[in-house]
Amino acid sequence: MSEPGGAWGTTGTAPYRPAGARGAGIDRPVLPPDLYRRRQEALRAAAAQEGLDAVLAVGRAFYERGAPVAFLCGHLAPAPTAASAPGYEGWGQSLLLVPCRGPVVLIADAARPETVVADQIELTAAHPAALAGWIRRLGLATGRIGVAGSDLWSWAAFRAASLAVPGAEWVPADPLVNRPRRLKEPEEQALLARAAEAADVGLAAALEVLRPGLSEQQLGAAGTAAALAAGADFVRYFRVHTGAWSLLSFRWPQATDRRVRAGEPVALDIIGARGGYQFDVLRTALVEPVPPELARLAAAAEDCLEAVLARCRPGVTVAELLAAASEAAARHGLGDALAPLLGHGIGLETVEEPLLLPGVDDRLEAGMVLCVEPALRVPGLGGYSIEEMIVVEEGGPRILTRTPRRPVIGATPS
Amino acid sequence: MSEPGGAWGTTGTAPYRPAGARGAGIDRPVLPPDLYRRRQEALRAAAAQEGLDAVLAVGRAFYERGAPVAFLCGHLAPAPTAASAPGYEGWGQSLLLVPCRGPVVLIADAARPETVVADQIELTAAHPAALAGWIRRLGLATGRIGVAGSDLWSWAAFRAASLAVPGAEWVPADPLVNRPRRLKEPEEQALLARAAEAADVGLAAALEVLRPGLSEQQLGAAGTAAALAAGADFVRYFRVHTGAWSLLSFRWPQATDRRVRAGEPVALDIIGARGGYQFDVLRTALVEPVPPELARLAAAAEDCLEAVLARCRPGVTVAELLAAASEAAARHGLGDALAPLLGHGIGLETVEEPLLLPGVDDRLEAGMVLCVEPALRVPGLGGYSIEEMIVVEEGGPRILTRTPRRPVIGATPS
Repeated sequence: MSEPGGAWGTTGTAPYRPAGARGAGIDRPVLPPDLYRRRQEALRAAAAQEGLDAVLAVGRAFYERGAPVAFLCGHLAPAPTAASAPGYEGWGQSLLLVPCRGPVVLIADAARPETVVADQIELTAAHPAALAGWIRRLGLATGRIGVAGSDLWSWAAFRAASLAVPGAEWVPADPLVNRPRRLKEPEEQALLARAAEAADVGLAAALEVLRPGLSEQQLGAAGTAAALAAGADFVRYFRVHTGAWSLLSFRWPQATDRRVRAGEPVALDIIGARGGYQFDVLRTALVEPVPPELARLAAAAEDCLEAVLARCRPGVTVAELLAAASEAAARHGLGDALAPLLGHGIGLETVEEPLLLPGVDDRLEAGMVLCVEPALRVPGLGGYSIEEMIVVEEGGPRILTRTPRRPVIGATPS
Repeated sequence: MSEPGGAWGTTGTAPYRPAGARGAGIDRPVLPPDLYRRRQEALRAAAAQEGLDAVLAVGRAFYERGAPVAFLCGHLAPAPTAASAPGYEGWGQSLLLVPCRGPVVLIADAARPETVVADQIELTAAHPAALAGWIRRLGLATGRIGVAGSDLWSWAAFRAASLAVPGAEWVPADPLVNRPRRLKEPEEQALLARAAEAADVGLAAALEVLRPGLSEQQLGAAGTAAALAAGADFVRYFRVHTGAWSLLSFRWPQATDRRVRAGEPVALDIIGARGGYQFDVLRTALVEPVPPELARLAAAAEDCLEAVLARCRPGVTVAELLAAASEAAARHGLGDALAPLLGHGIGLETVEEPLLLPGVDDRLEAGMVLCVEPALRVPGLGGYSIEEMIVVEEGGPRILTRTPRRPVIGATPS
């Protein structure tokens, strides 16, 4: 932990620009300022059409889920979320109030004003008081206020707002921000390609050192360091799952002291961000001598991936993508081995719309950026998955990921 | 991203125990199971005394804020928080329902049952439906339910619960869990000492490579890798702030391509966890030739730290600690340079009660574990802070951190 630079009276709202810090969107918004203004104007129009007087966008810390606020104004909350005390409720969070008429207001505990496109910036950790103040000042005290990020706004924050401005009506309005977030501008596609590069660098570093005897922790450390040195904003985690663990790709912690053994699968899953945009790439390395049934599992997983990628075009439904993966798995006699999650959108957050999951009624659109990750799991053998980051385009998917799909590692150091 | 192992039908609630993964609390709860049972019983008693019929504890992903649930049952949510779709609202979150009478129920999208102390575990991402089901099943549909983690429960989740069980009354009940969380059991103190060791290893690695010309990103990568290899569960970030940036210790991203220069301060702030318990340690290295005014700033910062540590005993108020730091800073003519945040509790989350901040009405108790981090900032010169992890004990603070307090680095490689 450390002290918010702008929060508690030291730098106020005055831009603070130490000399000599270049790159990584440090001295300007991540995207061209006009783009944020256009998004704000579009949001006002959409809100008015919904009969709303304003939209409150909610974001959490940059390493968690900051998208609603970052999408609209460029701000990524730099502080960690934290326990609160009276007057310090907003640590690690930010609020962007976008009234249909009037100034766009960012309320944040710490911010770099030169990276933010907003008319007013109030730097304070006392979010409920600040929000109530702006609601009154903007004539919204009896207004109808849509909330974008209803799954990010806390119940405590809602209660505080309800008490402070009891006449305001709060309405969930997530689609007003989540819908436009689905399609990535060319600038965002370029940033996501750069993010994917950082993931490739991290995976390459882990694959380079991978050999029997190395621990999961050592592999994760090597990959994380390489991605950070290559310019990742952060690596949220680099999951390393070996042997039987490769079946169970969600677990805590991300890596253990278990050591890689010959003939095993090693799942490597790197998640983080670069330039504010996220990466999420998974590979499964096989360590020689590769048992024939694992080699077949790997080939089947790549077939599933290719079957899905071949269908990734605008207009295709999530159900059609799931069916493509199922059919491919079934052709290999592995219909039961296919995991339900086929992928998800990615952008300012790791897991965005569309979710490629059973029961989700959605379809692809040009400009979406997806993580496609069919996974096959066979108890007693292991799991195998390949995850690609792609851009959905009319002519078929543009693949952002460069790491080889089916890495095989020698049993002894080369 | 990758697939929840237990979430969507593949492993169900059956314990899943791949062979050969040892250590890091992997095959058992982090703390002795009896301890969680005692906490659950104490919570039941406290809830009954408050006129509640049950308590709902809310936790988020292990790298965010999972404490209310982890404290009570050992579960750390392994999945990232994510966009939701109908039926998948609970990704990265977990709920522990503790009725005054009846079974303790964990609802999670993915869990390792063998690491959890609960009577029932329902693995599902459809949290609202699962919660409503258990509330009805346990006879709580018209009950009074306290919420521990009201700042973690989302407004969307509250709305869904209100719709599904309209007769239930929801009451904020954060202190029922946050109060006992303040005091760490001996086992937890030992885990926090081990966490501090990982931070020490990370800082040592960064300090070892630190020299003019190295980028902030390279330093962060070296420190992160060392902490991960030493067994950290994750390193949320390793902030590296050089030169003028050392003033502005909260910023995004955590490190840039800016290169260290001779004569500058380099703030190094490592935050993460090991064995489920968090570390947060900050050091400011000075690179030779050290300007005399920076050397004086460093000495003043250590005086502030020592003044606070000398007062860290049970019964002392937060205001008294802040006064001790202020007086020490003023003795150096740096009263205006002292940052408001003096420190915070640490445990299953990075920033816990007590918050050592102006206006906070609180006092120290034996068994608290704190991060103490007075910071001095002088525009045009830079910032200097030293952060120690300590245990509050009757005889004075026990310091967990081992890294030298005022590292000085040669201008050329040694």
